[in-house]
Amino acid sequence: MIRAGIVGGTGYTGVELLRILALHPDVEVAVVTSRTDAGQRVDSLYPGLRGYIDVVFSLPELEPLAQCDVVFFATPNGTAMLMAGQLLEREVKVIDLSADFRLKDAEEWSHWYGIQHACPDLIADAIYGLPEVNREAIRRADLVACPGCYPTAVQLGFLPLLENGLLDVKCLIADVKSGVSGAGRKAEIATLMSETGESFKAYAVSGHRHLPEIIQGLELFAGTSVGLTFVPHLTPMIRGIHATLYGQTKASLEDVQALYEQRYATEPFVDVLPQCSHPDTRNVRGSNMCQISVHQPQGGQTVVVLSVIDNLVKGAAGQAIQAMNLMFGLQEDIGLKIVAFYP
Amino acid sequence: MIRAGIVGGTGYTGVELLRILALHPDVEVAVVTSRTDAGQRVDSLYPGLRGYIDVVFSLPELEPLAQCDVVFFATPNGTAMLMAGQLLEREVKVIDLSADFRLKDAEEWSHWYGIQHACPDLIADAIYGLPEVNREAIRRADLVACPGCYPTAVQLGFLPLLENGLLDVKCLIADVKSGVSGAGRKAEIATLMSETGESFKAYAVSGHRHLPEIIQGLELFAGTSVGLTFVPHLTPMIRGIHATLYGQTKASLEDVQALYEQRYATEPFVDVLPQCSHPDTRNVRGSNMCQISVHQPQGGQTVVVLSVIDNLVKGAAGQAIQAMNLMFGLQEDIGLKIVAFYP
Amino acid sequence: MIRAGIVGGTGYTGVELLRILALHPDVEVAVVTSRTDAGQRVDSLYPGLRGYIDVVFSLPELEPLAQCDVVFFATPNGTAMLMAGQLLEREVKVIDLSADFRLKDAEEWSHWYGIQHACPDLIADAIYGLPEVNREAIRRADLVACPGCYPTAVQLGFLPLLENGLLDVKCLIADVKSGVSGAGRKAEIATLMSETGESFKAYAVSGHRHLPEIIQGLELFAGTSVGLTFVPHLTPMIRGIHATLYGQTKASLEDVQALYEQRYATEPFVDVLPQCSHPDTRNVRGSNMCQISVHQPQGGQTVVVLSVIDNLVKGAAGQAIQAMNLMFGLQEDIGLKIVAFYP
Amino acid sequence: MIRAGIVGGTGYTGVELLRILALHPDVEVAVVTSRTDAGQRVDSLYPGLRGYIDVVFSLPELEPLAQCDVVFFATPNGTAMLMAGQLLEREVKVIDLSADFRLKDAEEWSHWYGIQHACPDLIADAIYGLPEVNREAIRRADLVACPGCYPTAVQLGFLPLLENGLLDVKCLIADVKSGVSGAGRKAEIATLMSETGESFKAYAVSGHRHLPEIIQGLELFAGTSVGLTFVPHLTPMIRGIHATLYGQTKASLEDVQALYEQRYATEPFVDVLPQCSHPDTRNVRGSNMCQISVHQPQGGQTVVVLSVIDNLVKGAAGQAIQAMNLMFGLQEDIGLKIVAFYP
Repeated sequence: MIRAGIVGGTGYTGVELLRILALHPDVEVAVVTSRTDAGQRVDSLYPGLRGYIDVVFSLPELEPLAQCDVVFFATPNGTAMLMAGQLLEREVKVIDLSADFRLKDAEEWSHWYGIQHACPDLIADAIYGLPEVNREAIRRADLVACPGCYPTAVQLGFLPLLENGLLDVKCLIADVKSGVSGAGRKAEIATLMSETGESFKAYAVSGHRHLPEIIQGLELFAGTSVGLTFVPHLTPMIRGIHATLYGQTKASLEDVQALYEQRYATEPFVDVLPQCSHPDTRNVRGSNMCQISVHQPQGGQTVVVLSVIDNLVKGAAGQAIQAMNLMFGLQEDIGLKIVAFYP
Repeated sequence: MIRAGIVGGTGYTGVELLRILALHPDVEVAVVTSRTDAGQRVDSLYPGLRGYIDVVFSLPELEPLAQCDVVFFATPNGTAMLMAGQLLEREVKVIDLSADFRLKDAEEWSHWYGIQHACPDLIADAIYGLPEVNREAIRRADLVACPGCYPTAVQLGFLPLLENGLLDVKCLIADVKSGVSGAGRKAEIATLMSETGESFKAYAVSGHRHLPEIIQGLELFAGTSVGLTFVPHLTPMIRGIHATLYGQTKASLEDVQALYEQRYATEPFVDVLPQCSHPDTRNVRGSNMCQISVHQPQGGQTVVVLSVIDNLVKGAAGQAIQAMNLMFGLQEDIGLKIVAFYP
Repeated sequence: MIRAGIVGGTGYTGVELLRILALHPDVEVAVVTSRTDAGQRVDSLYPGLRGYIDVVFSLPELEPLAQCDVVFFATPNGTAMLMAGQLLEREVKVIDLSADFRLKDAEEWSHWYGIQHACPDLIADAIYGLPEVNREAIRRADLVACPGCYPTAVQLGFLPLLENGLLDVKCLIADVKSGVSGAGRKAEIATLMSETGESFKAYAVSGHRHLPEIIQGLELFAGTSVGLTFVPHLTPMIRGIHATLYGQTKASLEDVQALYEQRYATEPFVDVLPQCSHPDTRNVRGSNMCQISVHQPQGGQTVVVLSVIDNLVKGAAGQAIQAMNLMFGLQEDIGLKIVAFYP
Repeated sequence: MIRAGIVGGTGYTGVELLRILALHPDVEVAVVTSRTDAGQRVDSLYPGLRGYIDVVFSLPELEPLAQCDVVFFATPNGTAMLMAGQLLEREVKVIDLSADFRLKDAEEWSHWYGIQHACPDLIADAIYGLPEVNREAIRRADLVACPGCYPTAVQLGFLPLLENGLLDVKCLIADVKSGVSGAGRKAEIATLMSETGESFKAYAVSGHRHLPEIIQGLELFAGTSVGLTFVPHLTPMIRGIHATLYGQTKASLEDVQALYEQRYATEPFVDVLPQCSHPDTRNVRGSNMCQISVHQPQGGQTVVVLSVIDNLVKGAAGQAIQAMNLMFGLQEDIGLKIVAFYP
């Protein structure tokens, strides 16, 4: 059994790790930390876990975590970078669900996250945990930076076209809609039900922290610089991301459809729908799947890619466990066979 | 492997059976019928099942169903009673999620359901599928009538007090709230999102079809006739039932709490919360659990029992599979270890 | 024009006062205070008010408020009692939407609200602002304590039966469901959309602050002490309260229906629906109406009263303005002719 | 008083006409038709209208409608064109909220709506009811074709830039999100709460009926042909449209902001927010306002325009009444001073 620790077990990604790991046949959740709730049973805060998780929240201290085989950081940005080094020295594998190790450029990281990076030397060792791109590197990794939720949906949506040089890279558009759980479990007026229910809005149009992460990925795929307009929106539901992606291509819809099907044919968690389908976020809710479809309205050169994920699963906890499975030589989908939750 | 058939695979309870059975280690879903969608792949209608269910909807005909070991009826009322007899003759076990075999009195059934019962002789053989009451009978049953969603929440909530003669049986009140999936997957204006979102109402106060079923159960527990006022409400969410139950008792809260804990101590799917907790429907969403708590406000003689289930799981598909596990001698919770879906 | 001030203009009841007063033909909103947002334009925080409210938030200081004809307190409990006396001395009428002046017993107030009452001498002067009971007193009042949202729905629902001695007063039950805006515009995890969306729960079953207020009212109507079990619930919608009230009566349904119709025949904001209707909270959403229907399931002695209001209108801002209209000799419904918002 | 008739008074746009007209000081609602509900009181079907609308649904027959001064058609497509001619002959003004007279090309209309146009000769007389473009023509019109909901949000968003030749017209993108009331009050599985709640999807990416209407408008503004990709989405709320519009421009953000402010300076129902704001659909909910903001992310040439309306008000009933006010020489905003409904 793999002994797993979770730092920051009270946020939505932390609880989602618990939901999935509780039934993972090869993992024992040994340590769950929370500064504010240390000493309480995990299942007293989250009664849905009664009978599944028999652990008490502890303080985020090195020693018990160092006894784990793997530690997940489901913490606010800026926390994992303070402990990751010590754990790696103790030969504990680290999977960071926050943004601390996603950007390769420490200065750009500081620009977007507003603090100095605490261990810029570790950045180079961190593997970006998108299995569809970095599977082999993840297998050998000790430190994995899990992609953000928006970046997962957008990168998987653009990947086949960009890899094959089939898009005009100067004017990509990603119009992306997220459920409110993406904002986390924080006491904030802006995400009260009275504020976000029955309403829809764009936010951070001038620049969202996921923008440099997405661009870093797209440029790797394209092998050149790209121009991207990324507009995130808040939609009145709890879970789910829907990316509507626009680009200019000379390829035909049939070729694009074939390309996507081929590129993702063996991927366990990317599912290309039949041509001209409309993926619905509920069809991946609770599951680790990304469902994608492609369109070319009116037969023009504008290709529209629709890409949906559950922001807390493929966009966070599920993808982190997918990485863990790879890092420990397990079957990639073990513990992740979850049928989406409908209705 | 148990070969399972599902008659009526396009409604919400049918799809929920598919969601759970897809991962059940001892069951193969062999036949799924739908009059309207025969010939289509199940996963084309329900893309969340892609990769999990590789079956085409067929017409509801006897022969392929008779090749199954068990057939679930997830059909409108009045359908199972037309086919159950033939299947039982072919030694196929039948689990009916509709109301056809719930009431022991065929005339009362006809009164509430508006049609003659097609096979009143089978009613006596049907076992009411509430494992917390009828576990041994279910093990030996060939025909199980799964309880309705409201009746499950209400009966489990009142059971310990009534069994022990601790309630004034003349004035029980069940104020129950259901999510809209309880109304089924039917084209109706009344359950459009524009009609049911952001609104709350009671309905059928003068008499709901689940009333005689609940009374039948409560009278069995109490060993006498009971007076029950049952008021169902529609609440603007998709899944979940919350029963708020009121009765008069002379017992103390401590004794009532101890009684509930003891009565359900070995039940895999009834979880008595610590005294004075408030169960939340989301803590059982997607799971087969019933969570219960008891209160006596201001130390009076009014006991308030709060009982929550997921109407599609413990209130339908999950309880049906729990019955199936018992009928086939499997571990009762196999395939039903599902952590509730939060947030 | 009546010059109105609003203390605490950033909460939901404060903004709702603004929504209604903006179109009130006899009122000019002169002062809106907010400690946290002083100096900002009101419509920069609430862009829906652009073009309707041309005021800047100011600090809650005596002088500008003393220039008003009436001051509404839409503040947390414990604030109005600190300023009301000074304003009354300056001959400003005070309408308090908080709980400070609702209970006639200062010690009981302290027990439930956890602080000493700052001006117990004013309590006797305060008129409880339920026009259906206290219309004439409100007309002459200088200080009005607006009823709470739950108390409004419950009192109007029980009033005719209790006034006429037609209920067994020992075992009244009020099972009440509220939308989440009732919890206010406060940064709290418990009312995030991710926490309250798609879920339903009871809370404060052991005792809610509105309990003594409701009992105080019911006992006045009944002229005797009453036994009430009050269970509040949180329902996943933004606005609306639905009270389901239970009592024992010897009266017939026809008599009860006639009694309610007669009692409320001339009330502008209580609407008795035809016998056996089911009021829906959306039918009063945004309006100042209370809609009520009565039932006697199975012709028994249990009467079920359904009473719905918009918690922010008849349960707060609308009722406050109704009181203001009375206090200033205006037509009672002026500014309050608002058609409910559907769908 | 203007005598108004409404054909098709049971759909969401019909009821919204009633909500607004009930309080319009110059209008009396004289006739409301409904084939299915003829003979019933309007307020028995819509109890929120009790006390405001004292009319019985009648059959949609010529004579009573011909006694009106104006008839609104809130009917499915294909109905208004069958009656409009007769009413116009009787000198009744006609305001059509359906699509029958929106497209100037009858063949294109037939292509998208699947039936022959019944009165192609009337199309030329019909004035497209977008006051911001056609105010003077609407004043003189006898037949007004109200714009669709998507077209209103998109056209008002693009208008200033296109009129001034500041956009590359070859690659406009409109990514638009609508609440579910846009699908109407029809018994359909696809818009059940269980289907649309807690989920998000695009639909009709290959071609939506509003596409030719939008293109017709944009080409008029631009004076040339335009290339538009229009992707509609369904978002889990009841009311509201949020258009996110993308185009390429050489103008600076400051100039674009100034242009929008200037273009809409005297418009009563278009409100340009301060630079880089994010309009929220709730801020126009229930009101006739369109709120717009403009952005140029990262200072590039991609301009992002955010445009929000309430689909049932500015996108339907409100805009229709705005047209009526113009047609009858009333103040344009009379009856339409409605503060948005928050929270």
